[in-house]
Amino acid sequence: MSLLLAMTGWHVEDWRARFKALLPDMPIVTLGEPFDRRSVHYVASWKHPEGSLAGLPNLAAVFSLGAGVDHLFADTRLPDVPIARVVDPDLTTRMSEYIVLHCLMILRQQRRYDAQQPQKSWDDDRNQPAARSVRVGVMGLGELGQDAVHKLKVMGFDVAGWSRSPKAIDGLASFSGSEGMAPFLARTDILVSLLPLTPETRGTINATLLAGLAQDGRLGGPFLVNAGRGGLQVEADILAALDAGTLKGATLDVFETEPLPAESRLWTHPAVTVTPHNAAMSEPEAVATLISAQIRRLEAGEPLEHVVDPARGY
Amino acid sequence: MSLLLAMTGWHVEDWRARFKALLPDMPIVTLGEPFDRRSVHYVASWKHPEGSLAGLPNLAAVFSLGAGVDHLFADTRLPDVPIARVVDPDLTTRMSEYIVLHCLMILRQQRRYDAQQPQKSWDDDRNQPAARSVRVGVMGLGELGQDAVHKLKVMGFDVAGWSRSPKAIDGLASFSGSEGMAPFLARTDILVSLLPLTPETRGTINATLLAGLAQDGRLGGPFLVNAGRGGLQVEADILAALDAGTLKGATLDVFETEPLPAESRLWTHPAVTVTPHNAAMSEPEAVATLISAQIRRLEAGEPLEHVVDPARGY
Repeated sequence: MSLLLAMTGWHVEDWRARFKALLPDMPIVTLGEPFDRRSVHYVASWKHPEGSLAGLPNLAAVFSLGAGVDHLFADTRLPDVPIARVVDPDLTTRMSEYIVLHCLMILRQQRRYDAQQPQKSWDDDRNQPAARSVRVGVMGLGELGQDAVHKLKVMGFDVAGWSRSPKAIDGLASFSGSEGMAPFLARTDILVSLLPLTPETRGTINATLLAGLAQDGRLGGPFLVNAGRGGLQVEADILAALDAGTLKGATLDVFETEPLPAESRLWTHPAVTVTPHNAAMSEPEAVATLISAQIRRLEAGEPLEHVVDPARGY
Repeated sequence: MSLLLAMTGWHVEDWRARFKALLPDMPIVTLGEPFDRRSVHYVASWKHPEGSLAGLPNLAAVFSLGAGVDHLFADTRLPDVPIARVVDPDLTTRMSEYIVLHCLMILRQQRRYDAQQPQKSWDDDRNQPAARSVRVGVMGLGELGQDAVHKLKVMGFDVAGWSRSPKAIDGLASFSGSEGMAPFLARTDILVSLLPLTPETRGTINATLLAGLAQDGRLGGPFLVNAGRGGLQVEADILAALDAGTLKGATLDVFETEPLPAESRLWTHPAVTVTPHNAAMSEPEAVATLISAQIRRLEAGEPLEHVVDPARGY
């Protein structure tokens, strides 16, 4: 039996070396070379080409090399086998670093002081609100969302959460389902998006959603932080809300098209912070170690962990 | 008995109104008006003029209107009565917001992405260290330092502390005294200064200290965050270390002279972030409430809290 590495945009030989070191007895094959399709029991994928996993009769599991699995479900010919996500505690920590960093930059008006420094302006703000006066709303309460909620609360923010299905999280005001969205948005000064990308969530961050955010908060208007997936957002609607002043700022790590095209106004809009989809990057070694452990678990007859529900798409 | 408000640079009438509302039965006088010096039992001061508190025969306590008390000890004719600091939990929270924000900006290379955005550059960094690989050293382990340590640890940083006298803090690698300084600096990638300003600490952040910081860390060189007092730092030494590349960046909220003079190179140095001494500003209402509670405590025969040790100066 063998492990097939199926990826685009990444260096497959680097990954082969990592898995070889971790699974010395497992033959490792790649899409670019001849191999016996019947030998493939496992696939590790990052944006594999459409249909390239079809016709693998002994396939037992597909592993995503990233935290998201939307790249797998984009393949209409994806085999009907168990699919496992990577749940990397380090990746969760990094996502929370990003979320807390950007919520604090917004709270503490870092962009104001960045703009003042070249002017040599010693202008402070004696009405600086404390974190407890600022309401953060986290959309998506999976591993990443729950860790972000915890750390935002430690920093003093007034945090609430929204998720597709109801979740009870200690001490968290949480909303769920379509009926919970309006009251959730109405109490949100900083909206943090950590939703998975599914057919249901595509385009969620649109004009309607942005119009529902709180306009009565201490920041003088609502802010958006999207570190989930670019497909969640309608960039034309975000730009329109920024231009209209109903959205005061946006920090975006993800985009409809990545890399963000040079012609996008998001690059140059004064109220937008762009980062190159690096809010939470796993170290390749950590990912290879986690997937190798899953393969050893299956080989020992133990159940697969972190299996994705294909009906929900995450 | 009366409360004397003695301040420079602030609006005394705003403070009179606040204290009047909180202590309706207490006569309140100010330096700019005639008053019976024998009536003054309490003083609330922010940078009172030298000698202006001398000749108050019934003075029972002096309250600092800010967290620091160095402005009081700057008066060589300060009366020998108990002096109390303001310990405002809100101020502690704000200081930690600032410390965590700027440590995360350094960790996540925010200045790199700020510089890239106008270039429309989608250049990420696949070697981004995680917080656990970055060693933060907090100098000063009072109320502010301990809260910052806790929150930096929650974010995942590898945190140690240094204080004048030994302090045992759960789970914290802590160093103390002059013999503890060298090993503390040698394991520090981001130095956070929260020391009080005393004759002993003046000029602590000098060429010798900066030369002791770790050069072997994951950030490619050490960083300084000073949110304590400007008198702690020797700005010529900081600039020299930045120019020499032995210090990779500095985030400064406080300066030898404030406001920072326009001719200072700190304003324009590409590796320096300047904020206008606003890392932690108390809301005036909170300060007036805390001091009023102290006065009521004394009037009820209870002991004063948060008394400063004049020998230590904090």
